[in-house]
Amino acid sequence: MGRVQVRMEAALARLLPQAQVAPARLHAAMRYATLEGGKRVRPLLAFAAGDVAGAAAERLEIAAAAVELIHAYSLVHDDLPCMDNDVLRRGKPTAHVEFGEATALLAGDALQSLAFQLLAEHRLADDPHAQLEMVRTLATVAGSRGMVGGQQIDLEATGTALSVPALEFMHIHKTGALIRAAVALGAACGTLQEAERRSLDRYAKAVGLAFQVVDDILDYDASTATLGKTAGKDAKQGKPTYVSAMGIIRAREMAESLRAQALAAVQALGSRAGRLVSLADFIVLRKF
Amino acid sequence: MGRVQVRMEAALARLLPQAQVAPARLHAAMRYATLEGGKRVRPLLAFAAGDVAGAAAERLEIAAAAVELIHAYSLVHDDLPCMDNDVLRRGKPTAHVEFGEATALLAGDALQSLAFQLLAEHRLADDPHAQLEMVRTLATVAGSRGMVGGQQIDLEATGTALSVPALEFMHIHKTGALIRAAVALGAACGTLQEAERRSLDRYAKAVGLAFQVVDDILDYDASTATLGKTAGKDAKQGKPTYVSAMGIIRAREMAESLRAQALAAVQALGSRAGRLVSLADFIVLRKF
Repeated sequence: MGRVQVRMEAALARLLPQAQVAPARLHAAMRYATLEGGKRVRPLLAFAAGDVAGAAAERLEIAAAAVELIHAYSLVHDDLPCMDNDVLRRGKPTAHVEFGEATALLAGDALQSLAFQLLAEHRLADDPHAQLEMVRTLATVAGSRGMVGGQQIDLEATGTALSVPALEFMHIHKTGALIRAAVALGAACGTLQEAERRSLDRYAKAVGLAFQVVDDILDYDASTATLGKTAGKDAKQGKPTYVSAMGIIRAREMAESLRAQALAAVQALGSRAGRLVSLADFIVLRKF
Repeated sequence: MGRVQVRMEAALARLLPQAQVAPARLHAAMRYATLEGGKRVRPLLAFAAGDVAGAAAERLEIAAAAVELIHAYSLVHDDLPCMDNDVLRRGKPTAHVEFGEATALLAGDALQSLAFQLLAEHRLADDPHAQLEMVRTLATVAGSRGMVGGQQIDLEATGTALSVPALEFMHIHKTGALIRAAVALGAACGTLQEAERRSLDRYAKAVGLAFQVVDDILDYDASTATLGKTAGKDAKQGKPTYVSAMGIIRAREMAESLRAQALAAVQALGSRAGRLVSLADFIVLRKF
């Protein structure tokens, strides 16, 4: 585990309500759904963007935690029986299998609230208007025209064959929006020129889409043991994927092309973008 | 319907995503769960507190809408089959009956995000730090140590006999916290002395608890037709209520005593508290 990941585990463990605080079972479920698992791609992106903007790590860990809590809540709700009905996540039973549906539902709800609480109660930007803008950004990408909207499109698309543009529209919302927000919030903890901010956003758009394409490729060819979640599930559930829409060869080409786009977007930033470059490589070349 | 209620219906209809915007079904569910129903007690309290603080109506309707969206989302999730499994709300089929469980779940999630988006994207206080404090307040009362925590306690208490203090602890979280936030956010849109703020909070605490006691009394003795929701359901589900904990006569005395406490808290504010006084009367003396 890298330095940022170690730091984030500690930050999340500290920022989540302690498991012995009442209501204890709810807090245990919130911690279960968030801690000890996940690649922490969004926090890594926030820290890497913060590098470019010269942001302090104390601010970045709060902003990154807020984004990760939104991600964690979305997984809990996505796994529920009325959604994907998944029983395995990050190699462990899903939250509703472990704690029951009602507690899992409430834990997801409370994780969302906590994300906004964190963004409001710590000082994250020199200008409080900029901090309000961070709250607005996270709320917008999490909502009906962002992540949750993408989940709804996914829901309605199950069992149908989507065109590649329709698939892209879905993923831009479902996963892309929150990944862009991770980069934007990391950058907002520091200082950037407007042109630099636009470069980071082009990077984030490419990386966000690449992340999903690679997910579909991994789901297509990985085994359950390596992934830590039920593999081949998308195909079984009739979910449209990049592999089903364009074939495995073109999907691999697309992932590689998006990586090139991401790297091109941040080339002018030089060494400050070192971690962003490594992350684009990691996201596209990962095997899990 | 009063002037504030008419204004709030129009504000909510405007602030919610339009039903024809994609994903249309999700937006239709969000509107269904929020519009054309409800007594709008929390917005009324926000406006009444805003009266005391000399707040502009343009600010109050945003703050009140944010609180009402949190309330609306909590009802959608509370009605789900894994929670109370309720089929009737405000005289209409519940959201999951009308739109299916998955869409109802997502609509609730998106309503919560929208509440924080509204608080961040409109100017609600002269000082942006004060506005961040409004975000923090709403996030805290909505979360695991506020409303959602209260729902968890409720969940765990079903089928058990709670003592009156345990029941009070549950309701202080489940409904009391959001009602206090409605008053606090309304006041924060204007200007108040610290002592006045404390008076409003004492009022809100008493009114919040009174609201729940009266709810239990109404559930005990009202018919389904008058309530617009399934009556006597709490008792059937083995949920502890004030009526089951202390009997109908003492419950009525308690509601009356809380009304007196609420009125005493704001007496010194004179005519500026006129609407707060009327609301305390409405909440305790209502028949639905």
